[in-house]
Amino acid sequence: MSGKKAKDSLITMNELVLPNDTNTLNNLMGGRLLHWMDIAAAISAQRHSNRIVVTASVDNVSFKHPIKLGDVVTINAKVTRAFHTSVEVRLDVWAENIPSGTRIKSNEAYYTFVALNDEGKTVPVPELIPESDEEKALYDGALRRKQLRLILSGRMNPDDATELKALFNAAKQ
Amino acid sequence: MSGKKAKDSLITMNELVLPNDTNTLNNLMGGRLLHWMDIAAAISAQRHSNRIVVTASVDNVSFKHPIKLGDVVTINAKVTRAFHTSVEVRLDVWAENIPSGTRIKSNEAYYTFVALNDEGKTVPVPELIPESDEEKALYDGALRRKQLRLILSGRMNPDDATELKALFNAAKQ
Amino acid sequence: MSGKKAKDSLITMNELVLPNDTNTLNNLMGGRLLHWMDIAAAISAQRHSNRIVVTASVDNVSFKHPIKLGDVVTINAKVTRAFHTSVEVRLDVWAENIPSGTRIKSNEAYYTFVALNDEGKTVPVPELIPESDEEKALYDGALRRKQLRLILSGRMNPDDATELKALFNAAKQ
Amino acid sequence: MSGKKAKDSLITMNELVLPNDTNTLNNLMGGRLLHWMDIAAAISAQRHSNRIVVTASVDNVSFKHPIKLGDVVTINAKVTRAFHTSVEVRLDVWAENIPSGTRIKSNEAYYTFVALNDEGKTVPVPELIPESDEEKALYDGALRRKQLRLILSGRMNPDDATELKALFNAAKQ
Amino acid sequence: MSGKKAKDSLITMNELVLPNDTNTLNNLMGGRLLHWMDIAAAISAQRHSNRIVVTASVDNVSFKHPIKLGDVVTINAKVTRAFHTSVEVRLDVWAENIPSGTRIKSNEAYYTFVALNDEGKTVPVPELIPESDEEKALYDGALRRKQLRLILSGRMNPDDATELKALFNAAKQ
Amino acid sequence: MSGKKAKDSLITMNELVLPNDTNTLNNLMGGRLLHWMDIAAAISAQRHSNRIVVTASVDNVSFKHPIKLGDVVTINAKVTRAFHTSVEVRLDVWAENIPSGTRIKSNEAYYTFVALNDEGKTVPVPELIPESDEEKALYDGALRRKQLRLILSGRMNPDDATELKALFNAAKQ
Repeated sequence: MSGKKAKDSLITMNELVLPNDTNTLNNLMGGRLLHWMDIAAAISAQRHSNRIVVTASVDNVSFKHPIKLGDVVTINAKVTRAFHTSVEVRLDVWAENIPSGTRIKSNEAYYTFVALNDEGKTVPVPELIPESDEEKALYDGALRRKQLRLILSGRMNPDDATELKALFNAAKQ
Repeated sequence: MSGKKAKDSLITMNELVLPNDTNTLNNLMGGRLLHWMDIAAAISAQRHSNRIVVTASVDNVSFKHPIKLGDVVTINAKVTRAFHTSVEVRLDVWAENIPSGTRIKSNEAYYTFVALNDEGKTVPVPELIPESDEEKALYDGALRRKQLRLILSGRMNPDDATELKALFNAAKQ
Repeated sequence: MSGKKAKDSLITMNELVLPNDTNTLNNLMGGRLLHWMDIAAAISAQRHSNRIVVTASVDNVSFKHPIKLGDVVTINAKVTRAFHTSVEVRLDVWAENIPSGTRIKSNEAYYTFVALNDEGKTVPVPELIPESDEEKALYDGALRRKQLRLILSGRMNPDDATELKALFNAAKQ
Repeated sequence: MSGKKAKDSLITMNELVLPNDTNTLNNLMGGRLLHWMDIAAAISAQRHSNRIVVTASVDNVSFKHPIKLGDVVTINAKVTRAFHTSVEVRLDVWAENIPSGTRIKSNEAYYTFVALNDEGKTVPVPELIPESDEEKALYDGALRRKQLRLILSGRMNPDDATELKALFNAAKQ
Repeated sequence: MSGKKAKDSLITMNELVLPNDTNTLNNLMGGRLLHWMDIAAAISAQRHSNRIVVTASVDNVSFKHPIKLGDVVTINAKVTRAFHTSVEVRLDVWAENIPSGTRIKSNEAYYTFVALNDEGKTVPVPELIPESDEEKALYDGALRRKQLRLILSGRMNPDDATELKALFNAAKQ
Repeated sequence: MSGKKAKDSLITMNELVLPNDTNTLNNLMGGRLLHWMDIAAAISAQRHSNRIVVTASVDNVSFKHPIKLGDVVTINAKVTRAFHTSVEVRLDVWAENIPSGTRIKSNEAYYTFVALNDEGKTVPVPELIPESDEEKALYDGALRRKQLRLILSGRMNPDDATELKALFNAAKQ
């Protein structure tokens, strides 16, 4: 199984914020956006793996700006790295207000997926080949994020998270 | 504004997994579950604050077991702690398979919300009063989780995260 | 097949009233509520019977108070009695308005369900064991309600409805 | 306000049973059908009253035959009688299976609605003029059904239900 | 396989325009209406052919009048002509505003469908027998519309479209 | 009001075909696709015009290949030409099957939209500036397609459609 390029997994999804997506202040509900992001990321992971995938985890997501009824939401999803039977997908979300013509960066997030065969068993996925500098940085960071996920879900001892310590050191500077 | 008890914010939501909630392997899609969890958590946060709330963040969520078409999903949501204009809500999710009678713990998660007035401006919320030992432990942990959120979203220097260091120390033992 | 306790079938469902659930006066549409009640009651009946169930009947439901956009609807469902291959479920519905903090009893209703096996044939269900005084009263009333259903659907002669006559006599006092 | 003819309120609604409308045995869920019936009946009541209407009650509905995924559901709704600010609507439901060409009568039901003005206050509605024999029989029966509703919701003493007694007497014969 | 009458394929569908069907000006979105029209037309085509059908084409549709939130949309669908394995369905759409009591003709359209057997292969359909003058005119026009479809999708040379030329000649007068 | 480039209006939308989007043969229903195409095209038209837009017409669309449950649908929408208060948008649709890795061109279509101000009145839109050869060809063809729409909706005499005659002549060769 030969590797596949990061850029071949790029997916763009545009959604119009409809009434049922909003609360009584006409703001897009966070859970609706997480749902759209999951579908966009799953499509990207499926394109890379040529397999049905299921969501394995979602990293911390923060919602900084309200998105309003009638806004256009644009979601970009691209695989950052493949592990044995799983992939990490990075998402970038923008919200665009049509009458005012403004467009703001709304969210960044990482979702991971596991690839399954027709019987629902995990199967290996192709390696991810990063090309641009940005793709390489995301590829490198994927290991740190994986360690953080394992610690947060109680499956790794923080002492063993050598890559994560590098993250904390990097953040200090 | 007097404080309110944790148990008064407890919300239970039951959902039946319908075809449109599933992928082609008949597994509940992760994003759909995140959407339901957001609604359950928002109801809990609204009951505590008596205000419209908007999602501010979602902490790491991992999906350990597939949930199947026809399963009953039960989501418990309860406020763990109130900060000035925001609350943290803990979610516990179970999946129940009717014919087999099995019931598994599916997920745990923390969502945070900001309370808004009718003009969409943030407003203070009542304090949260924990009573049981479990509620007190969740209350204490809320500060550590808040620091981790701030670090992960780039708004706090890891050196200043005194509470978070306690988490790492606790994890080591 | 041993009996099961009434309280083990208790289901709570919370729903947020979204725009598409309402008419142009921002009132929850009755049919949407009947749909949610059916799902809650079916989950309760499935938990008791450990079988797939299908709705057999809905008793008179009256809608006394408007429920508004943004309100939180809470539905409690609990099995009142099991007959040979069917169960009766009682529903209690409340509507909660967040900003005002008011909570009103909105509806009471009875749904009945038939239990099916994998081939879609009816199958026997466990007996229902009422424990509290309220559960016992609901258990006793189930027979009268069953007779009324049979008369209203033209399958019983009113003269044979000995239990129903008791209802009318009770109502007179 | 002059009266309006029954036949002018006739509404026909056809719905295709889609996956999300069904349970895991591919049967239409009862609550979904009650939802469709409510919309059809509300349209009929609105056409008669030229007002926004809200559901006031649903009479006993029994579900005799399973309706399957892919079936075509036909709902006829027609106003039977207008009271001061409310109307009663009769519904007839058929299910049609395309490949086999079979069509069965699935349900009959009565929904009542209250007419509202733009401020949400109840307003008088035009009288209903029955013309055919069937329309006249439905018009006459409406009073008995109204009394039964009032008794079942605890708002009328059975002794005062003179029309309802006639129903029981009629049923005896 | 004997022919079937046009009038036996007549389908009426009523839909209430709900918030999620509208844009931020409270106008029904065109795509939502096209979706409803497709379902109504498919039911009509299925009733004629007693087969599962799939949409083969939609002819030009123009939207002349805004349809508003809360309006009642009525769609009539009737088969105009059967070809070997396909049928053409004509749709007429009205929008009714309840408070004002106005009702306007909103759209006319033609959808075509192909009939499939259980393996998804095309199968012959019964002939369509037009009876009224209007049905006969629609039957005759079906050939011209078919030629236009073939030209517009690049599958027929305009020179061969003898029937279409008649349309242009008719339009000139 | 200065013109805007065609490429700035390009919108990509990816959708996963879910159970409720399909018929009983697991094929995407045509109306659902027309609905998605309308939303994608409206977003493109809104981005060009910075206005709320409403659908004015849909040109002939033919559906050549079945799209299956679980497939990924990709819709590209780009404005081809602006007229005084309206724009024409071209759509290209592909369907991608994940396990097999195949991707087919599914549809091409043209939707037109009218731009509205906050009071729902039509307003002028910026001119469209085509740059590539393909954009210029689409720009030139827009006038012919507009004439065909006017003839088909009975608002233009075929004799006056000078551009359309060119289309027929081009098709002959």
